[in-house]
Amino acid sequence: MEAFTVEVITVGNELLSGRVVNTNASWIAGRVTKLGGAVKRITTVSDDVEECSAAIREALARRPKLIITTGGLGPTFDDRTLESIALALGIPLELNEEALHMVREKYGGDVTPPRLKMAKLPRGGKPLYNPVGTAPGCLIEVGDTIIIALPGVPLEMEAMFEMHVEPIILRLSHVAYTSMLIRVDTIEESSLAPMIEEVMKKCKAVYVKSRPKRNGEAYIEVEVSSRALTMKEAEENVAEACRLLRELIAKAGAKAQEL
Amino acid sequence: MEAFTVEVITVGNELLSGRVVNTNASWIAGRVTKLGGAVKRITTVSDDVEECSAAIREALARRPKLIITTGGLGPTFDDRTLESIALALGIPLELNEEALHMVREKYGGDVTPPRLKMAKLPRGGKPLYNPVGTAPGCLIEVGDTIIIALPGVPLEMEAMFEMHVEPIILRLSHVAYTSMLIRVDTIEESSLAPMIEEVMKKCKAVYVKSRPKRNGEAYIEVEVSSRALTMKEAEENVAEACRLLRELIAKAGAKAQEL
Repeated sequence: MEAFTVEVITVGNELLSGRVVNTNASWIAGRVTKLGGAVKRITTVSDDVEECSAAIREALARRPKLIITTGGLGPTFDDRTLESIALALGIPLELNEEALHMVREKYGGDVTPPRLKMAKLPRGGKPLYNPVGTAPGCLIEVGDTIIIALPGVPLEMEAMFEMHVEPIILRLSHVAYTSMLIRVDTIEESSLAPMIEEVMKKCKAVYVKSRPKRNGEAYIEVEVSSRALTMKEAEENVAEACRLLRELIAKAGAKAQEL
Repeated sequence: MEAFTVEVITVGNELLSGRVVNTNASWIAGRVTKLGGAVKRITTVSDDVEECSAAIREALARRPKLIITTGGLGPTFDDRTLESIALALGIPLELNEEALHMVREKYGGDVTPPRLKMAKLPRGGKPLYNPVGTAPGCLIEVGDTIIIALPGVPLEMEAMFEMHVEPIILRLSHVAYTSMLIRVDTIEESSLAPMIEEVMKKCKAVYVKSRPKRNGEAYIEVEVSSRALTMKEAEENVAEACRLLRELIAKAGAKAQEL
């Protein structure tokens, strides 16, 4: 079951200096996955135009259905994501009347140069209304790929994702996805490995992944997931794989419980 | 002041499904930055060997001093980062006696096939001792770039970073880095933008970045940072830039305070 592919590009020096944890990336990845898409890559680059446009060009070359960028849409000199998109596509950045209208409305007509900057989009780009903050987003189609630029402020990004991106994803998506977590105790990950392989061999439509955890006590967390044409089918796939895995774990004398 | 460049590649489907927030990336980025390095890009890819080896090849082509990977070193079928590195470099994966010794010690000699797998490194790779978990890391030099593979479990990754990576970074690093945060109230980011530009023009060795925040009340957080040959010089650069910025903010009738 192939899901449609998405790449996420998060822009900002604060992500590369480690000052900010990239929760935008995981938030978007979680939403896209639940809506039936498959995030293939997340790239974080600095506010530098060369770095950012290189990442966009490289993502485009892999031909995902959707590229979502976050960050770099505001009024300051280092908000240069739209300039980077324009450079990557070899098109000019120009004042967009609809975007200007959005910015003007926010400021009651007082459009200073830093504010005017937020209304400049790559030629052919469509401005996306920002219901929380000021900077409009931007949507631009390149061949079979849709590029969507969202702001980096989490509240703004999330509101705009729900307003503009979800409808596009639902249109692209024809798959359902579900997953279940199992906690396994009193077994080594290396002893669990052959059981997981057996489950993956017998249940073709599922993916099983284990991770050692150390929250106070040590245990192993196993995630069983499936993509299918319907949610019912995906849930049945996961249930069957979990049943088989728990059987194998019990046979080995270890403990498993759903989380 | 050019810092030496680092790329981080984090490997794992759980990062692309959004189930796990990539705190490893920000932890590493923060450490590298404080130690005087510059993280130029963070890439997240799935457990797939093709995807992972492509990301490694691409990072190598940008010639960073250091590539740090996390994740994919364990005993399960989908722990394939070392295989991906071998594929990217066009060298075979082979049993490393020193790594085998490390794994054997952990299990008191009981080396099953999944455990043996953890002792297979790209040819020429040096195993890195894991003081917390089982899977050894790996260091391999390619031209002027050092690739270091660390596990994905945060406690293991952090301990191994401190043990193996920090000494290498300190050897590479000849720069100091410091930063300061200022909270600015009662001003629009778009009105702050020209002040930031003025500070960056007058104080050449600093970088100033603003971010709107909404923790309960709305305010703007400004980060002023500097890289210099000595910590004293970096601190003086930041202090001077902060002084000038606070002066401009006060002149505009707004409030600024150090965080």
